[in-house]
Amino acid sequence: MAARQREISVSEFFTKNRHLLGFDNPRKALLTTVKEAVDNSLDACEEAGILPTLAIEIVEVSESRFRIAVQDNGPGIVRQQIPKIFGKLLYGSKFHRLKQQRGQQGIGISAAGMYGQLTTGRPLRIISRTGRRKPAHRFRIAIDTKKNAPVIQRDEEIEWDVAHGTRVEIELEATYQKGRRSVDDYIEQTALANPHAEIRYAPPKGEEIVFARVTKELPKESSEIKPHPYGVELGVLLRMMKETSSRNLRGMLTSEFSRVSSPVATKICDLAGVSPTINPRRLTGPNVEALFHAIPKVRIMAPPTACLSPIGEELLLRALEQRVEAEFCTAVTRPPAVYRGNPFQVEVGLAYGSELGAEDPVDLYRFANRVPLQYQQSACAMTKSSVSTDWKKYGLQQSRGALPAGPMVIFVHIASVWVPFTSESKEAVASYPEIVKEIRLGLMEAGRRLGTFVRRRRREADEHKKRSYIEKYIPHIADALQEILSLSDRKRDSTEGKLKTILERSRKI
Amino acid sequence: MAARQREISVSEFFTKNRHLLGFDNPRKALLTTVKEAVDNSLDACEEAGILPTLAIEIVEVSESRFRIAVQDNGPGIVRQQIPKIFGKLLYGSKFHRLKQQRGQQGIGISAAGMYGQLTTGRPLRIISRTGRRKPAHRFRIAIDTKKNAPVIQRDEEIEWDVAHGTRVEIELEATYQKGRRSVDDYIEQTALANPHAEIRYAPPKGEEIVFARVTKELPKESSEIKPHPYGVELGVLLRMMKETSSRNLRGMLTSEFSRVSSPVATKICDLAGVSPTINPRRLTGPNVEALFHAIPKVRIMAPPTACLSPIGEELLLRALEQRVEAEFCTAVTRPPAVYRGNPFQVEVGLAYGSELGAEDPVDLYRFANRVPLQYQQSACAMTKSSVSTDWKKYGLQQSRGALPAGPMVIFVHIASVWVPFTSESKEAVASYPEIVKEIRLGLMEAGRRLGTFVRRRRREADEHKKRSYIEKYIPHIADALQEILSLSDRKRDSTEGKLKTILERSRKI
Repeated sequence: MAARQREISVSEFFTKNRHLLGFDNPRKALLTTVKEAVDNSLDACEEAGILPTLAIEIVEVSESRFRIAVQDNGPGIVRQQIPKIFGKLLYGSKFHRLKQQRGQQGIGISAAGMYGQLTTGRPLRIISRTGRRKPAHRFRIAIDTKKNAPVIQRDEEIEWDVAHGTRVEIELEATYQKGRRSVDDYIEQTALANPHAEIRYAPPKGEEIVFARVTKELPKESSEIKPHPYGVELGVLLRMMKETSSRNLRGMLTSEFSRVSSPVATKICDLAGVSPTINPRRLTGPNVEALFHAIPKVRIMAPPTACLSPIGEELLLRALEQRVEAEFCTAVTRPPAVYRGNPFQVEVGLAYGSELGAEDPVDLYRFANRVPLQYQQSACAMTKSSVSTDWKKYGLQQSRGALPAGPMVIFVHIASVWVPFTSESKEAVASYPEIVKEIRLGLMEAGRRLGTFVRRRRREADEHKKRSYIEKYIPHIADALQEILSLSDRKRDSTEGKLKTILERSRKI
Repeated sequence: MAARQREISVSEFFTKNRHLLGFDNPRKALLTTVKEAVDNSLDACEEAGILPTLAIEIVEVSESRFRIAVQDNGPGIVRQQIPKIFGKLLYGSKFHRLKQQRGQQGIGISAAGMYGQLTTGRPLRIISRTGRRKPAHRFRIAIDTKKNAPVIQRDEEIEWDVAHGTRVEIELEATYQKGRRSVDDYIEQTALANPHAEIRYAPPKGEEIVFARVTKELPKESSEIKPHPYGVELGVLLRMMKETSSRNLRGMLTSEFSRVSSPVATKICDLAGVSPTINPRRLTGPNVEALFHAIPKVRIMAPPTACLSPIGEELLLRALEQRVEAEFCTAVTRPPAVYRGNPFQVEVGLAYGSELGAEDPVDLYRFANRVPLQYQQSACAMTKSSVSTDWKKYGLQQSRGALPAGPMVIFVHIASVWVPFTSESKEAVASYPEIVKEIRLGLMEAGRRLGTFVRRRRREADEHKKRSYIEKYIPHIADALQEILSLSDRKRDSTEGKLKTILERSRKI
């Protein structure tokens, strides 16, 4: 039996368990592939301070086979890095950083390439150029799943009429459908949450759709932060003590955590009964455990929130007004908050329309770090928060345990240095109590504003109805009075006028 | 930016994404740890042909910290393999085999150890012995998450009063609770689906519980099979062609797939327009694609099903009768079926009681390869199949879109060489149409038997009620008749007797 034991490569693992990465079925495979490429492009542009211009193309090769191309005007990728970024799972720059980004893991795009290869046998095709004076490189890259390593099939310099940017092409077995949770939906929602991006989209059938920029201002650049002590785990703390380059414990605590000043570090050490000047590598297990238990007892400032880059109320409102047909829009950006030491920030928008569908449940648009979430709605903290909010207060209908009904779109966005997704395919946000609370507060504030609007509109409608009654019946009453009192025609008209005034007045009291 | 790009180890990845492995919260962490150790023990015993005897111990170290020990009488593990099996993620013997086993991935037990280390800093402790004449080895193993490699802290020979077997101890932050989805529940259900195992369980509080064997017969040993051509993917086929040791295509197809005879192989080649004698390594991409498209057009026998080892109707019935308090039990083992080239087999049991709770939804016990599934019930194919079955036909109450109500346990088991779980924490089975269909057929057959019982019992209850009415009123009628007809006391008694007979007769018509 011992001979049978062997290592399993991470790409073999994810080939077998592709549903973990969002490749459960051909329809979702198409969406996931577009999503991973778009996430990467937007992240790259923003990190380089470039206003993103994206071109997304989906070409139907045969009934069940599509070629997807996503091209950006980002900074490009240096030649040596291209094979690993696209041809190796668990490789990238984002995993080890506490920073608000769309990508987190270093899996997405290489997994999409692997899925394409698995279903069509075709390699990934990449073109990238880092600047006008640099050549453009074209690659064809396959993935050796047994080794989790790229296999370079072609690597050449080419002419490319693009100053800088990256283009990735993947061919895969897939299905294209319109409607809910479609690629079309996803791209539209991406434009909504990224009002600074221009996105051109050529669907498999029909004309190119252009989502123009709503603003020319780039989002505030999100910065990287150090971990906050409240979120650290014992095992991680033990490892940090061994790996630190600090010579003494106090120095280690102040330099490797955020918000730990020298007095705070001393207080933690005192409480744990450990000298602040000891060499961290000399600490015993019980020492570190004592420090670990001392941390929550010391008051430490919340982590810095400069690392967060929300959309902002004004821009969100403008994007909602531009992209959703609605009579009333409102947007709320909550102040930053913290879960398990990770800063996060919630934004909520409501767009209330008057078209048909007043009996249907509202549409819930969910976003994490500006990326629309399309699947697993019921498992998401955003859904739970929306369902547990009392929408009747704000003039909507709502059955117990359900989303409210009405002609409305609810927009919820969470921005964080680490979004706690419930699964690797990044489809739903885990229900940390702090997160649920913030979303509810946002929904309630937006809801109150909506309630004011809905009530005013209802009052206006009532008023209109009453007024039309009055206008309908007063002439008849006047006729009757004329007959009873034998009034002249002129007198009758003035009576009618007076009647109107009196009734109006009495109605308003 | 290029300098920032780096490799991410699979253990770093799963440390951050521990919820993927079932370590979302302290309560679930306890359950998952016990489960992984028990799965491994039962697999090891069965593979070695040993009737499993397991001892599970949970010791409360402090309010939020527990030490779990699971010991088996399995074949033991050879010394050199111990560190990697317990201290390295994605390492094991089960991933590359098509065989019905509890474990599939080579992640479980090392992930549990990693979680223990992360939350308590304590290493895994393992004792293992492969036979009476071999020494027992005791290890203390930590995991270097940056490298995904074991760190051996201790490795020694010890005296152990066990002839062969393995004991694993993990200390972790956790919460112990009774009730639904508890460890207690899990162990009870494990005993139900493994009637050949003896399980002793010492909970943190209270006395040891012993689940005795229901049978001394080991389950039929499941054998390993080759993949079936209907389930192969283009990318996999391309790789197989490159890696095969066969010299010609026909030989490759017959030797590397199950159910491909020489005529079947020839037919595939003919349809694809490729010579059956060509060296597989010489095939071009389009050649392999043509073969890939030819496969589904050729009739190929379903895969062999000797690889499956269901519990069996008789044993399942006995286990249900022994472990569940019920008035009526029934069990159905469906014939084997196939999804995506993978053989599987469904078993269904119903245990209908008469205690309280007739208004509550039934209990659904879900099992995959004899392992109870505790979480994500609503996402599981077994739940969907149970909900979509019309239980009213069988005499139960059922609201639309819900499980039926009544004093009943539904038991569903799927045995397969590859169970398609919806997530890495192995909590729910994906809804492949073939799987849903088989479960429904099983439920319907068991349901019909239940219906007969429920109707008979209801008839008996009705009869009893009517009879008691008759017995209640006849004396009064007889009294009245006596008075009207002025009968003697003796005549009255015989009249009463005749009345009863007449009424009984008329009631039965």
